[in-house]
Amino acid sequence: MDSFASKQINGSMLTRNPLLDPEEFRREGYMVIDFLADYYRNVEKYPVRSQVEPGYLRERLPESAPSHPEPIDTILKDVMNDLVPGLTHWQSPNHFAYFPSSASIAGILGETLAAGFDVVGFNWMSSPAATELETIVMDWLGRMLTLPKSFMFSGNGGGVLLGTTCEALLTTIVAARDRLLERIGRENIGKLVVYGSDQTHCSFHKSAKIAGIHPKNIRKIKTTKSSAFGLRPDSLRSAVEADVEAGLLPLFLCATVGTTSTAAVDLLGPLCDVAKDYGIWVHVDAAYAGNACICPEFRRYIDGVEGVDAFSFNAHKWFFTTLDCCCLWVKDPGALVKALSTSPEYLSNRATDSKQVDYKDWQITLSRRFRALKLWLVLRSYGVENLRNFIRKHVKMAMRFEELVAEDQRFEIPVPRFFAMVCFRISPTAILKQLYSSCHQHCQKYVEEDSVNDMNRKLLDSINGEGHIYMTHAVVDGVFVIRFAVGASLTEMRHVMNAWKIVQEHAGELLGQTLCTCSKSTACEREAPVPYLSPLRLPLVNSSAVKTSEC
Amino acid sequence: MDSFASKQINGSMLTRNPLLDPEEFRREGYMVIDFLADYYRNVEKYPVRSQVEPGYLRERLPESAPSHPEPIDTILKDVMNDLVPGLTHWQSPNHFAYFPSSASIAGILGETLAAGFDVVGFNWMSSPAATELETIVMDWLGRMLTLPKSFMFSGNGGGVLLGTTCEALLTTIVAARDRLLERIGRENIGKLVVYGSDQTHCSFHKSAKIAGIHPKNIRKIKTTKSSAFGLRPDSLRSAVEADVEAGLLPLFLCATVGTTSTAAVDLLGPLCDVAKDYGIWVHVDAAYAGNACICPEFRRYIDGVEGVDAFSFNAHKWFFTTLDCCCLWVKDPGALVKALSTSPEYLSNRATDSKQVDYKDWQITLSRRFRALKLWLVLRSYGVENLRNFIRKHVKMAMRFEELVAEDQRFEIPVPRFFAMVCFRISPTAILKQLYSSCHQHCQKYVEEDSVNDMNRKLLDSINGEGHIYMTHAVVDGVFVIRFAVGASLTEMRHVMNAWKIVQEHAGELLGQTLCTCSKSTACEREAPVPYLSPLRLPLVNSSAVKTSEC
Repeated sequence: MDSFASKQINGSMLTRNPLLDPEEFRREGYMVIDFLADYYRNVEKYPVRSQVEPGYLRERLPESAPSHPEPIDTILKDVMNDLVPGLTHWQSPNHFAYFPSSASIAGILGETLAAGFDVVGFNWMSSPAATELETIVMDWLGRMLTLPKSFMFSGNGGGVLLGTTCEALLTTIVAARDRLLERIGRENIGKLVVYGSDQTHCSFHKSAKIAGIHPKNIRKIKTTKSSAFGLRPDSLRSAVEADVEAGLLPLFLCATVGTTSTAAVDLLGPLCDVAKDYGIWVHVDAAYAGNACICPEFRRYIDGVEGVDAFSFNAHKWFFTTLDCCCLWVKDPGALVKALSTSPEYLSNRATDSKQVDYKDWQITLSRRFRALKLWLVLRSYGVENLRNFIRKHVKMAMRFEELVAEDQRFEIPVPRFFAMVCFRISPTAILKQLYSSCHQHCQKYVEEDSVNDMNRKLLDSINGEGHIYMTHAVVDGVFVIRFAVGASLTEMRHVMNAWKIVQEHAGELLGQTLCTCSKSTACEREAPVPYLSPLRLPLVNSSAVKTSEC
Repeated sequence: MDSFASKQINGSMLTRNPLLDPEEFRREGYMVIDFLADYYRNVEKYPVRSQVEPGYLRERLPESAPSHPEPIDTILKDVMNDLVPGLTHWQSPNHFAYFPSSASIAGILGETLAAGFDVVGFNWMSSPAATELETIVMDWLGRMLTLPKSFMFSGNGGGVLLGTTCEALLTTIVAARDRLLERIGRENIGKLVVYGSDQTHCSFHKSAKIAGIHPKNIRKIKTTKSSAFGLRPDSLRSAVEADVEAGLLPLFLCATVGTTSTAAVDLLGPLCDVAKDYGIWVHVDAAYAGNACICPEFRRYIDGVEGVDAFSFNAHKWFFTTLDCCCLWVKDPGALVKALSTSPEYLSNRATDSKQVDYKDWQITLSRRFRALKLWLVLRSYGVENLRNFIRKHVKMAMRFEELVAEDQRFEIPVPRFFAMVCFRISPTAILKQLYSSCHQHCQKYVEEDSVNDMNRKLLDSINGEGHIYMTHAVVDGVFVIRFAVGASLTEMRHVMNAWKIVQEHAGELLGQTLCTCSKSTACEREAPVPYLSPLRLPLVNSSAVKTSEC
């Protein structure tokens, strides 16, 4: 008999439920909590980016599920030995990659509580507390962001918790789509056009395609360094006008506050002015930066939000609420409900007739987790003031990193820092200088954009391969930048300082290598270094016209 | 200074990270585990269906989030006082409503571990273990279901973990849609037709609409009692032929194994034969019943699965894996990837070039939780044999309930039992008999379908209102049935026996009431009871042609 199946109590055999026995839950629960506590204590010691090779795990695990139960001790040992080496440690204080996935005690335990209750809150009756707490925390959060009343339940708008931004975008695109097609006829679906910039997250394009928008009608309007890669209203107007002239129907604009590549900001007010002229639904994707807007000093980045139709940010990014938790507010929940409602008999009950918020009609899926619980725990466990201060602390650390980069002549910051992310690279000048000094022949030296990018890619690979810190990259306007995103919950100033030291060391090593590929036996031209032409600073150079660094 | 912000250790002030301090995590973690252990111990004592009134929570909670931190003790006290009364207790052993949401120690702790690591496994590199473990457990599970090799990674198919069936359906509809439109041109989107039966879950219609399928092209093919509400292949063929003749393009069939109303089964083999003739993508929604198919004796319900394109079931329903965890297998992952892939520069890395499974391209969203972890914990903690036995035990309890219903002349089972769900009702004959015996005038008595439905609705409301057990209902072919779905992890035979006693008591009370509305002062016709005409047993009666029960 399995060890958990029964227990001798007071001389009588009391059968214990193997699935949810309270004492067994307590015993195993403590062990998992201990496991995680130890994990946080040691997380700094693991290579941040997993160093395993593809396919590593299949070699370690059996072909089939076990026939019989295995004890939690064994399983946790395997988690440590087989899974932990294959994790990329998003909770490491040295994780500066992507955008943060910032966990917290309250977030994790909120998720645990929700999983423990395991209610399926598709409508009010299926668990009233799940629906009601969600409306309340969404109003709380809305107030923290000073969203206009039109987004609050009291103002006939409202908020909902979804999984990710993709869901928020798909939900609102479908709502906007059906609102328009209802008026002009379903057969016009092929004429609908959606707009974003070339910096808009790929989930927007994906969502639009899923919603049946013709792929050729998904606009990625060009941005430039001159507007810090924000979408310009005049560019939007031109694009919309061209479409209207071509007989197409402008539907939807996804404006971004805090783009993925560089955390750039689209200015909402002027974009809304354009959108209004054409009846375009405006959604603000503030997945990352929206979190910072709870601080009064950052609120200005969403100025103009009163003119948009929907606004979303990911609390699982930088609000210490574990994945997934995307907060979406809309002014017109009726548009969502009209497009997404389902009222089968098997879900009807007296509450469905009493006009309670029916969240299954505000989203793609029917079943939904009790996500409000973890958000509520985060809000209460830390309080508004601390939450603001956590954000500020991260921004401050990023500013310090920015200073350090700026002080080192070998580096440059090609795009302005927004929030807690610094984009930087080894500068072309440094590469040129090194090339010049390392060539015995004083060969002719030019560097192409590609070579500068290659050098920076090498720098990043070398750093990430070592495992002490983890950063990722972006390419904007042809320029490869290294993204340093502060936001992991455990990150302190010492981690940032150390990260910078690591960057310097690796760069020093790379720049110390002989870059010149000429051999002493080969004569080469002697010329002084020419200024490097970067598309970020000068008109784009046709790279084929630039001589390579071979001498 | 906040209590958690710092701690005096060995005389020196050591600042503790307020978000993820290991010791604070341990302290609070234990408390939450204790809270849940106590919850399971007491869950039987709470009214299963929450008894609160709409709006109850807003009166109890403050208008805004707190400015300053609150301790976990206070928060947990509020969870108990403010939230627990508003929960519908899906983990109660007396929860027989909807389909189960069966939690388990392993499922909950797997979710806790995943939330603790809080990795964002959108591609291989972002956490190799998350991707690799998912491919492994999906193969394990596929083998438990004896899915054909074409659904396994080794057979060039593969499985993925999504949130819900809605996501599985939307994902596959979009894949099928784009595969066809790629060939015949995007402008044909308005001609695509999707098929299900009148028993198919509403999430199918919702998904199709989201994907831009014209709402008038969503077929709900009629089923009848004669085929136990399964979709008949000849009905499908007729529908498809009519559409083809009308110049439309058959795209997708959603076959259901275990419908929501009555757990009916569409026979896959014959349906696939029809679908094959027209190149229709077949998806099997086995959300509930797919779980049972891990038992060899239930496997026959998915016979013919080798002919379908995709198959999904919800491990969060009846596989003891907490919400959400939908398992989807496809034969042609390439179709998913083609429709859903995104390859932005900021996510590229050396692994993306090495043909690792890139799960973000197998689903709607980009970010994804580490769901494989909880499924792996469930599989290992219980083992295949126990998992089968848990299912069997539930089916056995449902069979016992079925026997009890059958033994009581006042009740009937209008549709066959499938798996662990019994649909029953007070029979029209019992109502008629009661009406007859309670009328002092021996008045003429007919009962309409509506009256029988009303009586059963009253029975259900009366039972649910009391709170000892919770069941929900369905209406099939005009008949209101009470659904008794066994599957909560804590349910034992005694709960089922007790539930039946409660049903009997409430029914007795209802049937004991004077149903006759005639007054002694009013003369009425004297006639023997006429047989009740039920659409489930006889051709549908026009209810307006049947005299009411007034005498």
